[in-house]
Amino acid sequence: MLNPTRVKGLHHVAFAEGQGAELAETFQRTLGLPVTSVERVPGFNERMLDLGNCSLQGLEVTGEGVVKRSVDRRGPGLHHIAFEVDDIAATMSELRDHGIDFIDPEPRTGGGGHLIAFAYPKSFGGVLVEFVEVRSEF
Amino acid sequence: MLNPTRVKGLHHVAFAEGQGAELAETFQRTLGLPVTSVERVPGFNERMLDLGNCSLQGLEVTGEGVVKRSVDRRGPGLHHIAFEVDDIAATMSELRDHGIDFIDPEPRTGGGGHLIAFAYPKSFGGVLVEFVEVRSEF
Repeated sequence: MLNPTRVKGLHHVAFAEGQGAELAETFQRTLGLPVTSVERVPGFNERMLDLGNCSLQGLEVTGEGVVKRSVDRRGPGLHHIAFEVDDIAATMSELRDHGIDFIDPEPRTGGGGHLIAFAYPKSFGGVLVEFVEVRSEF
Repeated sequence: MLNPTRVKGLHHVAFAEGQGAELAETFQRTLGLPVTSVERVPGFNERMLDLGNCSLQGLEVTGEGVVKRSVDRRGPGLHHIAFEVDDIAATMSELRDHGIDFIDPEPRTGGGGHLIAFAYPKSFGGVLVEFVEVRSEF
């Protein structure tokens, strides 16, 4: 079994929606969740809404890509969960020993400049799971 | 706008799966997430897995009901997100003023003995959102 301390907590839970970011706006307007960042990447915008102990991530379709395919297939809704770990390369190595397969063969730089990797949904019963090694901004 | 401090954090993110709880077992086995409680309610078992800053909740179908209908319709996967608030009745009242509709007309006792209420998914763009007022066990 992995060292349980390797999962430091939930980094974010993400939802996907179509162009316009109406749902992100609804979370802001009704719950007062502050938007801490908006990043534009090919195919979608990534908005981080602060929940205090973790973040809600809004993925807004802006063009073709994985987020659009998800929204086209399943409609808007919850998209993935992201666990924070100390050492993503070590986590990936240990998880591979447990039969977990990764979409990203190596950690890559994702939103916020953090190191990230996604596992295949089939490895977690249909749930898309991301791992995040937080990189300080400075 | 609501007082942002009303949302204290993410209480849990829930996934639904069929009988056998294979996915909950996978999270335990591969990530070492400890199970802090299992509650049997009509139609499903509710397992809480500790993530440190919040919980992952596994909903395992055991009979007819809302969880089975969700798994039958959409397959296993992410099911809902739950925000912790200080005063659920006050939150519901304020959210109704913002046009949010609730499945539960009044707060009810849910898992862990906490007060809970679910909003209709249409109020949050297709995402099922729960509010939780934590009740101490003692």
